[in-house]
Amino acid sequence: MEELFNKLLQVNVRCKDCDERKANIRVAIELQLTTSPVHKKDLLVRLTDDADPYFLFRLSISEEDFQSLKVQQGLLIDFSSFPQKFIDLLNLCMSEQESDSPRFLLQLLCQAPALDSSATFSVVETNAFKHLNHLSLRLLQGTDKEIKDYLVVCLSSLKGEKQTLEIKLKKTEDDLSRQLSYTQQ
Amino acid sequence: MEELFNKLLQVNVRCKDCDERKANIRVAIELQLTTSPVHKKDLLVRLTDDADPYFLFRLSISEEDFQSLKVQQGLLIDFSSFPQKFIDLLNLCMSEQESDSPRFLLQLLCQAPALDSSATFSVVETNAFKHLNHLSLRLLQGTDKEIKDYLVVCLSSLKGEKQTLEIKLKKTEDDLSRQLSYTQQ
Repeated sequence: MEELFNKLLQVNVRCKDCDERKANIRVAIELQLTTSPVHKKDLLVRLTDDADPYFLFRLSISEEDFQSLKVQQGLLIDFSSFPQKFIDLLNLCMSEQESDSPRFLLQLLCQAPALDSSATFSVVETNAFKHLNHLSLRLLQGTDKEIKDYLVVCLSSLKGEKQTLEIKLKKTEDDLSRQLSYTQQ
Repeated sequence: MEELFNKLLQVNVRCKDCDERKANIRVAIELQLTTSPVHKKDLLVRLTDDADPYFLFRLSISEEDFQSLKVQQGLLIDFSSFPQKFIDLLNLCMSEQESDSPRFLLQLLCQAPALDSSATFSVVETNAFKHLNHLSLRLLQGTDKEIKDYLVVCLSSLKGEKQTLEIKLKKTEDDLSRQLSYTQQ
């Protein structure tokens, strides 16, 4: 597994029957290598919300999936250049997210949960004339197992961060008491 | 939900085809109140392993379940006194766990995963003559959803602990720099 991108991005989230809201969504892009039964690369796109551990939407794109996506959305690039192009678009959205009228923005349109557990994630450019859809990906809501596995990774990295903090705190306290005893001499 | 007990206890874990091992297992006992559709109290027993986020065995005991358990294991107490009696037994095991030949100990016997995903959790007294089984509960392995929900709770409490550490570190650093500037004057 190779992580290509992992950033907190502002996304306009719209659910059926709900007002649009701006949310900080973590967008991760990973390249997954499988060697068995055949050697292949899949691109994994994952949207999570640091504030809501139950929020997880994902999509795995194989080289074959990409061919349909390419035809369907009129893309002019091949599978190997797709990840970088997608990341460029995400960075473009990020660079504009502080602006009052961003030219590029990210949208997540969720289906009504009763109907379907999918959501459409889009990179949209707004010019004076219209909204231009640069890319639209249909993500599926994570299953209990996928959310569980994701939470295990979060828990383990959080444990590591906590341990680092404990070590730093111990060191700072030692420094403090050393300085204090030095002063009192 | 009312938490009655939550401690790390030493448990002898034995799986079919595996050597017995001593493990530190977190045993939690909770009282769950349901008001709808009927008003009832269930006792929830949960075993987890802080080192293995995928390990979760649980059992929910309703008042009706307890009646069968009472008959089956010849218990002389009623449902309302059961939690405290169970906790007394757990504390007894805990007080003996440092001993070379503990009189009371906890056992977890796991079924072969392919056959069944249950495990039997027992409080066993060993005297000069025999092993006496004080209580045996058949726990079920957590489903993906149950493990997911449990991990969300762990994640949230770990986030809180991390935040407390960050505040403490900040305060210690401030103290240190104040002491330093005071010394240099």
